[in-house]
Amino acid sequence: MIRIPFEMMKEQFKSVLLKRGMQCSDAELCSTLIAETSLDGVYTHGANRFSVLVKAIDEKVVDVQAHAMPYESFGCFERWDGQGGVGNLNAYACMKRAIALAKEHTIGCIALKNTNHWMRPGTYGLMAAEQDCIGILWTNTIPLMPSWGGLDAKVGNNPLVLAIPAQEGPILVDMAMSLFSYGKLETYAREDRPLPVAGGYDQEGQLTKDAAQILLSKRPLPIGFWKGTSLALALDLIAASLSGGRTTRSVGMMGSEKKVSQVFLAFNLAAFSDRKNIEKEIQATLDDLRQSEPVDGNATVRFPGENRQKIRSENLRLGIPVDTTIWQAILSL
Amino acid sequence: MIRIPFEMMKEQFKSVLLKRGMQCSDAELCSTLIAETSLDGVYTHGANRFSVLVKAIDEKVVDVQAHAMPYESFGCFERWDGQGGVGNLNAYACMKRAIALAKEHTIGCIALKNTNHWMRPGTYGLMAAEQDCIGILWTNTIPLMPSWGGLDAKVGNNPLVLAIPAQEGPILVDMAMSLFSYGKLETYAREDRPLPVAGGYDQEGQLTKDAAQILLSKRPLPIGFWKGTSLALALDLIAASLSGGRTTRSVGMMGSEKKVSQVFLAFNLAAFSDRKNIEKEIQATLDDLRQSEPVDGNATVRFPGENRQKIRSENLRLGIPVDTTIWQAILSL
Repeated sequence: MIRIPFEMMKEQFKSVLLKRGMQCSDAELCSTLIAETSLDGVYTHGANRFSVLVKAIDEKVVDVQAHAMPYESFGCFERWDGQGGVGNLNAYACMKRAIALAKEHTIGCIALKNTNHWMRPGTYGLMAAEQDCIGILWTNTIPLMPSWGGLDAKVGNNPLVLAIPAQEGPILVDMAMSLFSYGKLETYAREDRPLPVAGGYDQEGQLTKDAAQILLSKRPLPIGFWKGTSLALALDLIAASLSGGRTTRSVGMMGSEKKVSQVFLAFNLAAFSDRKNIEKEIQATLDDLRQSEPVDGNATVRFPGENRQKIRSENLRLGIPVDTTIWQAILSL
Repeated sequence: MIRIPFEMMKEQFKSVLLKRGMQCSDAELCSTLIAETSLDGVYTHGANRFSVLVKAIDEKVVDVQAHAMPYESFGCFERWDGQGGVGNLNAYACMKRAIALAKEHTIGCIALKNTNHWMRPGTYGLMAAEQDCIGILWTNTIPLMPSWGGLDAKVGNNPLVLAIPAQEGPILVDMAMSLFSYGKLETYAREDRPLPVAGGYDQEGQLTKDAAQILLSKRPLPIGFWKGTSLALALDLIAASLSGGRTTRSVGMMGSEKKVSQVFLAFNLAAFSDRKNIEKEIQATLDDLRQSEPVDGNATVRFPGENRQKIRSENLRLGIPVDTTIWQAILSL
């Protein structure tokens, strides 16, 4: 493991993307979003995923020239076409537009079709929270999990994000419908560490904490068993229906993940005359959570997103930790 | 167990509510919604919960005279005040309004404060689906689960509903953020049956399938461990913020569950020119799910909501099954 300064990491990403023909302002934004992901400590979806993006560009799955564009408008709700462009740039443009619509109408919603993997889902939730908006957003994916009671992958793990502005920094829930994302499973497998709880089945159908076995069986455990696959199914069908885009089933028919569907919802809290009271109630809840009697006497109950600021300042100061072989691979791109 | 015809059950509910001073059209609707819940096989939230509603009316927690009213309007988004009225009537009025707004603006949203337990969450999802709308709705509750890492109840189980119209009847996801709702735990405890999987902790902090032990410890397991409590927290804060109402923490301070906050979102699929194609894609996904290779050779993978029609026609034909002591108690109200 080495530590790379934020600016250096971002510039390295940018130079690789410029070499692939991405226009300069796009390369600047795309690199910044990915470097910020690692800066926040979400390594699986930052630097660790950069080479996956570059491969998708090289294989023409991702078109660096294409941009998401609206194709149908209904006031505060718009349908956009991602045109196979860069996933995080498309998602950024749509979240930005949903926020602008929310500033005008209190609520704003964009449904996006034909887009690519958006890297870190939480990125777009944070954008909303930073603009004093609640953000609710999700994506579908290629089939990654069996439906409950089945053996073969039929549903996506369809990450869902809920972001809420708070005094001490956004509350950020950023979760796949599998207990562990494939990115997390790969990290545990690479580091040869057991999962904290059983995260799926091995090829014999037994529950296991061995991430490598789950990667082989392709049977990660959904959150809440039958509930997780039901929720994933609904999120998939809603994203595809609202955007007019592909369902998980239809994405799966293309062999590799592309042309996915996403939804971006923003609610502008600044529109409310009781905005101050809302802030107070949110803070009171966070304070109350911290007063929980802990299961482990030494631990404090935290809220989702609470550690982000701490990791971010540490990584800004010391540099962003990256697996040495991953960084070497990025330098050779 | 006895079987009561739908009409007889509804009329019994209605006469009890009329005796409590509920106006006739309200009593008719309230009774119909509760009887339909049992008709659909969701016994925990239908007849089994009726006496809880009546007790709340008798204790003046629920005001049978009060009705939900809009108090702030922002185009397709409105904030309503439930005024402590009947939970299912308030939720019905708000979902109806969200659908009407969606018919006008493609998207419609109502946030409701100061309301009471809405009985079966799925009721309002089905309303949306029957009007060719996608429905997304949720409620907060009194604190029912510890936050992850904590021992004392701090978060609600905050049921979430997603409903999608489909050719063969709505896809209906209706789920609490605990693996088993308290209603389900009570049923298993009453029938002295073990849960299918560990559903929480006993008072010694061990995972258990014994529902009675979990009711004692008040530590039901959230879906996906840390993910379920994070999602519950976010749903709570969003419902309270959008409605200007109480958070779970603030509901908990009142001792019993009242004045909860809810969100009702509707998207009008009929607004889209590709409506036919959306229907085709949804059906193709359901067909694909059924082709899953089953874990249990004899079972077929089902979609959420699939069994509803079958149970409904059976219960219409044979009468609705009710626990005999529960029905006796209802007759004495």
